[in-house]
Amino acid sequence: MADIPTATVGRVVTYIRVLEELEAQNVLRASSGELARRAGVTPFQVRKDLTYFGRFGTRGIGYTVAVLRRELLRALGLDQTWNVVIVGMGRLGHAIANYPGASDYQFQNVGLFDVAPDVVGREVRGLTIQHMSQLGPFVASVAGTPRQVDMGLLTVPAEHAQAAAQALVAAGVGGILNFAPVVLQTQDLHLPEAFAAPGRREVTVENVDFLAGMKRLAFYMLGPQAGPAEE
Amino acid sequence: MADIPTATVGRVVTYIRVLEELEAQNVLRASSGELARRAGVTPFQVRKDLTYFGRFGTRGIGYTVAVLRRELLRALGLDQTWNVVIVGMGRLGHAIANYPGASDYQFQNVGLFDVAPDVVGREVRGLTIQHMSQLGPFVASVAGTPRQVDMGLLTVPAEHAQAAAQALVAAGVGGILNFAPVVLQTQDLHLPEAFAAPGRREVTVENVDFLAGMKRLAFYMLGPQAGPAEE
Repeated sequence: MADIPTATVGRVVTYIRVLEELEAQNVLRASSGELARRAGVTPFQVRKDLTYFGRFGTRGIGYTVAVLRRELLRALGLDQTWNVVIVGMGRLGHAIANYPGASDYQFQNVGLFDVAPDVVGREVRGLTIQHMSQLGPFVASVAGTPRQVDMGLLTVPAEHAQAAAQALVAAGVGGILNFAPVVLQTQDLHLPEAFAAPGRREVTVENVDFLAGMKRLAFYMLGPQAGPAEE
Repeated sequence: MADIPTATVGRVVTYIRVLEELEAQNVLRASSGELARRAGVTPFQVRKDLTYFGRFGTRGIGYTVAVLRRELLRALGLDQTWNVVIVGMGRLGHAIANYPGASDYQFQNVGLFDVAPDVVGREVRGLTIQHMSQLGPFVASVAGTPRQVDMGLLTVPAEHAQAAAQALVAAGVGGILNFAPVVLQTQDLHLPEAFAAPGRREVTVENVDFLAGMKRLAFYMLGPQAGPAEE
């Protein structure tokens, strides 16, 4: 698979969502124009993005919705199970733990962590919130059962994000989804040798930022000269 | 200003965050290498992204942190006030209303809305949650004072997102930040003529999706062949 632009990955996530809506409406085939309209991009952009993942669709007939969805899910690794822990069970951690559909796509919440005495011990959707000091033992207990903890969702206050990320990585969690409004210093994050899979980048960090969305929206609202361009 | 790729806008938001960290550490100048390291991209990418916004930096000296930050804030429209309402005061709406720094960058929460009888009337950070039936009158009451409601944050359940978006737009709110896991049908969103500013796109929608972050992370964790590419 060729190197895929980050913006394409983001759009493919949207295409999958559109394909699921079409399936829910019992639509069997869709043109690039229809996918583009629902995803808010141009048909050319849809066709260009999909070329990274293979040859899909037939001129004049369009894409078979179920096939394209299945292939894109596989391309993004969403046909396998990903075990997730949430670190930081404030309002945001709770919102995510209760997010509808968070257990679709094989994302499985397996552990919830915090340090606040009035939060640790509470139960959310069948999981008891554990103290951060239990993170290492917990991740070790899951490893090789044959599951493992794949991702840590970081929903702690900004000033604790780097330390919490380090705790996750030290415990052997190689993927971090960072919700804290801070840029994590990834060069300081070293996965212990025992956990680093061959050929895998040491630690993968992806950021989700509420304010980033507001900032992008502000920019696009400035006027037509500032509109998003095709890439 | 030339058309700016959406991915560049997203990265500039990260650069601004990095520049703020540098300012907080009393760093006056930074090279593209330093910015790149902290933002998790290549120095070439930093320099290429910044060319969209003007000429910054001096070879061998780097960028003046305060100047670059100010210019990027201005380019993104973050030097002006944006008034925000939140529609949907469940856990996610509460998390955002309480998000630290959400009132930085001149984002001002001015109204909170829901339909649940046990939620309407509650107070969050000095604002009383209003019933959705009050959205239109509220937006009208703010308009021309000389403020207006610029953005609506959509944090309702997926099945109510389209209707809530339509209510926002009907009330005259032209910018929507959608947190619901659904692609809004923007062709069905028409700003009333009285509200449409000349030269502005009718309705601007930007999506924030928890699951999208997890999906991108899953893809990047698949292995090095699937890593993010420079664009």
